[in-house]
Amino acid sequence: AFSASAYAQSNVTIYGLVDAGLVRESGGAAGSVTKVTSGIGGQSRLGFRGVEDLGNGLQAVFTLENGFKADDGTMDNTTSALFNRQAYVGLKSKELGQLTLGRQYTMLYNALSKVADPFGAGYAGSTKNLFATAGANTRVSNALVYASPVVSGFSAELLYALGEQAGSNKAGRQIGLGLGYAQGPLNVTLAHNKRNQDTAAVGTTPAVIRDEAKNTLLAANYDFKVVKAYFGYAWNKGLNSSPLPVANAFGFRVAPVASTDSNDLVAGVNVPVGTGNLLASYSRKDDKTVRNQDADQWAVGYLYPLSKRTSTYVAYARIKNKNGAGYTVGNNNEAGSGDSAFNLGIRHAF
Amino acid sequence: AFSASAYAQSNVTIYGLVDAGLVRESGGAAGSVTKVTSGIGGQSRLGFRGVEDLGNGLQAVFTLENGFKADDGTMDNTTSALFNRQAYVGLKSKELGQLTLGRQYTMLYNALSKVADPFGAGYAGSTKNLFATAGANTRVSNALVYASPVVSGFSAELLYALGEQAGSNKAGRQIGLGLGYAQGPLNVTLAHNKRNQDTAAVGTTPAVIRDEAKNTLLAANYDFKVVKAYFGYAWNKGLNSSPLPVANAFGFRVAPVASTDSNDLVAGVNVPVGTGNLLASYSRKDDKTVRNQDADQWAVGYLYPLSKRTSTYVAYARIKNKNGAGYTVGNNNEAGSGDSAFNLGIRHAF
Amino acid sequence: AFSASAYAQSNVTIYGLVDAGLVRESGGAAGSVTKVTSGIGGQSRLGFRGVEDLGNGLQAVFTLENGFKADDGTMDNTTSALFNRQAYVGLKSKELGQLTLGRQYTMLYNALSKVADPFGAGYAGSTKNLFATAGANTRVSNALVYASPVVSGFSAELLYALGEQAGSNKAGRQIGLGLGYAQGPLNVTLAHNKRNQDTAAVGTTPAVIRDEAKNTLLAANYDFKVVKAYFGYAWNKGLNSSPLPVANAFGFRVAPVASTDSNDLVAGVNVPVGTGNLLASYSRKDDKTVRNQDADQWAVGYLYPLSKRTSTYVAYARIKNKNGAGYTVGNNNEAGSGDSAFNLGIRHAF
Repeated sequence: AFSASAYAQSNVTIYGLVDAGLVRESGGAAGSVTKVTSGIGGQSRLGFRGVEDLGNGLQAVFTLENGFKADDGTMDNTTSALFNRQAYVGLKSKELGQLTLGRQYTMLYNALSKVADPFGAGYAGSTKNLFATAGANTRVSNALVYASPVVSGFSAELLYALGEQAGSNKAGRQIGLGLGYAQGPLNVTLAHNKRNQDTAAVGTTPAVIRDEAKNTLLAANYDFKVVKAYFGYAWNKGLNSSPLPVANAFGFRVAPVASTDSNDLVAGVNVPVGTGNLLASYSRKDDKTVRNQDADQWAVGYLYPLSKRTSTYVAYARIKNKNGAGYTVGNNNEAGSGDSAFNLGIRHAF
Repeated sequence: AFSASAYAQSNVTIYGLVDAGLVRESGGAAGSVTKVTSGIGGQSRLGFRGVEDLGNGLQAVFTLENGFKADDGTMDNTTSALFNRQAYVGLKSKELGQLTLGRQYTMLYNALSKVADPFGAGYAGSTKNLFATAGANTRVSNALVYASPVVSGFSAELLYALGEQAGSNKAGRQIGLGLGYAQGPLNVTLAHNKRNQDTAAVGTTPAVIRDEAKNTLLAANYDFKVVKAYFGYAWNKGLNSSPLPVANAFGFRVAPVASTDSNDLVAGVNVPVGTGNLLASYSRKDDKTVRNQDADQWAVGYLYPLSKRTSTYVAYARIKNKNGAGYTVGNNNEAGSGDSAFNLGIRHAF
Repeated sequence: AFSASAYAQSNVTIYGLVDAGLVRESGGAAGSVTKVTSGIGGQSRLGFRGVEDLGNGLQAVFTLENGFKADDGTMDNTTSALFNRQAYVGLKSKELGQLTLGRQYTMLYNALSKVADPFGAGYAGSTKNLFATAGANTRVSNALVYASPVVSGFSAELLYALGEQAGSNKAGRQIGLGLGYAQGPLNVTLAHNKRNQDTAAVGTTPAVIRDEAKNTLLAANYDFKVVKAYFGYAWNKGLNSSPLPVANAFGFRVAPVASTDSNDLVAGVNVPVGTGNLLASYSRKDDKTVRNQDADQWAVGYLYPLSKRTSTYVAYARIKNKNGAGYTVGNNNEAGSGDSAFNLGIRHAF
């Protein structure tokens, strides 16, 4: 019984992350709050993936990844999507690259979380607090993604997500592009994301044509060994190009308005200190509309590893909102409720 | 740590299927649509199952099987049922057969998908497009299933699903029967399914007595080696005996009406061609009510294996509706939106 | 491929229970009902857990446990919480004890199900039918739990679950305490649970201050070898200290009212008889309010093991309600619909 089923197991690998801790948020309209929060540094997840060698350097690959909340056991989305983080299948060739279909990350989010942000889009210092990453800017369903092989450090990725609206191939579709260079200490990515917000005609309801949401991000980091330096700069244009994470956290009489023309900046460091790593960053939202609802964020954190798979952490960040802006200090998994937050937690990968 | 947990793993086997591809549907009221679709050939699934030897030829068995959509990561049902495909536990004896309790397939659906249809109830050519398989005709909850041992190729299966309605043992119950013979190149099954549609009295709400839905299917295939031939013929009588997969896909002023007296036919072939297999079938719905809303379907497909576990495929089918019938070309997982559809995809089993 | 992924598997252990059978409930307002029920003896579950050695007697631990219904495949809660049974991560030290964060059991429920009740809070005889275990008395989200090491048989557990309400650290919080002694044949636990039912002020909605729900349980069992004797006595005071499992199962014109001051008693035995074990218990709800809605329960059951992991069972219980009380005979997973019930089923652990 053992050898047979152990063999069966070999087709699938189970992996995951359980990240939980305490979050103290201050400055929100309803007062301070202390919470047990899941996914502070990275969303808690349980995944199933596999790779099958097909011969001639070709492989079949799949990933099914659930996001859950370790604080209350619920799924981490409002629609009970089981594999809300990732769900795809495809083919990978050493020479020709990889083509996958399903629910997948955008190049924009990967560049932000993996290249530009020393906090990796997590903890109180997540640059997501200001950068435009809400909704389909992070992951998109019905997507075809082609990833080129890496040649001399260069790589390219292309995403095409179908709108699936009858009568129009254009309505609701999304296009992504990533160009990367990683060699030695340097890692640079230029990413673009374009979401069509049209809806197709249905019966007597006419089509709705709307402005596209366009986001471009230049992300880079450089490992000086005594310090790893991070940088990111983004251009966001069009309707929903920079959706607000929280509608009106500070209870302003005039609620903040999502910018349709903005630039985002992040600059930070990861410094090995003692057994762990010290993280620090400055992020900025520059709203270029007449409202000029800008915001600054300062953040600091420390990751203390207990093993390769398990770490403890503390982090703190504060945002300064200008001209009625309403940005909040959240973390990887929550949008936040105030203009400052403190985190203390543990993350365990398996 | 390894040996201990590997041993623990041996009690459960993880298995599954990720099937995704492109679907182009044409002829529907809202126009053509191109989609990334999951489960074209067979619903994408993740399952957990186990067998324990209890001695004396007796085994304990269980299966828990989730159906999900690889295109968007959601569960493949509207009620967030986790193990919506199968969930059962039971005992299996070499000599006495198997008795299981839980959510299980009907004999009717197994006969259609495994014996009668060369497309296996999947791809554009799925004979489900015309055959009566909606809802509880495919799987049923609260079911006891007894499967006899196979004796000289003969086998029998009996299903009894409780209605679980207070005050009546009859209301809502479902009964299924399957008689099979499989020997050498021949495989024949006669299946019957009967669903009681009464509801029990609750408080001052009186009981509702309604016509039963009765479905009988004769399914057969024969492997001539150069070609495997398939055949199925069904008799459907009573309320909900042949529910419509789509209410009014073509936008008729008078919507199609579900037949309460119909016959279904399928005839097809699976021909080994090159490395792969060519599938073709003809299906027919013969509505015997005064509305006479008949339909014909022609279908063709090609499966190209990349390994034992991974295949690519193409398929095409077209339906001709008569007298205001509204049947659509779907696939294993979707009901479809038009009278023709093209599929191109990949399926990977693990 | 095998060795690599088998190694990856070793970080996580998959385990579970599939429990299903037939339940016949009698005496309810709508008449008798026969059902296929999941989780009669213990809720059907699928879990993922892991332990990582961090050195120096320190370990990282996690558990993610789903509860499902084997009769229809749905998740066993109304909110589609994936890991509704347990979801936590933490650190365990041989010398200092264990600290975990997440969704966890209360000490109250563990004492009842593991120490006081010979039926283990399952089968028709579950003392939960009368004891106050509904809702957050069983498990609680956003909880920190500290469990001391066991010293000379003594142990202690402390639970603090945050209310997570902005502007108040007290509103909605829950506190639990367990003191245990287990040595040789004796096992005793004293458990306490206190739930604050205040809500914090939100905007112009003022705070609501309400009575706390307080539950204290003394649980004990003693193994005389020819019989294992069980005992439990509980004190329940305050609003929601003893919520009703079913609102008005018997259709009384004046519906039963949840007691705000009650005592619960259980006394029972587990007797090895033949290959299996005979269970029997008497439970009592003593409502000390003016309504005096008391109830008695007599229960008997027999567990017949087919292996260490698989058992079959039968059980029967009957409740006598007094002065308009409306308690019902359920099982581990269902609240029941009448004043008596019979169970016949199978449970398989993996």
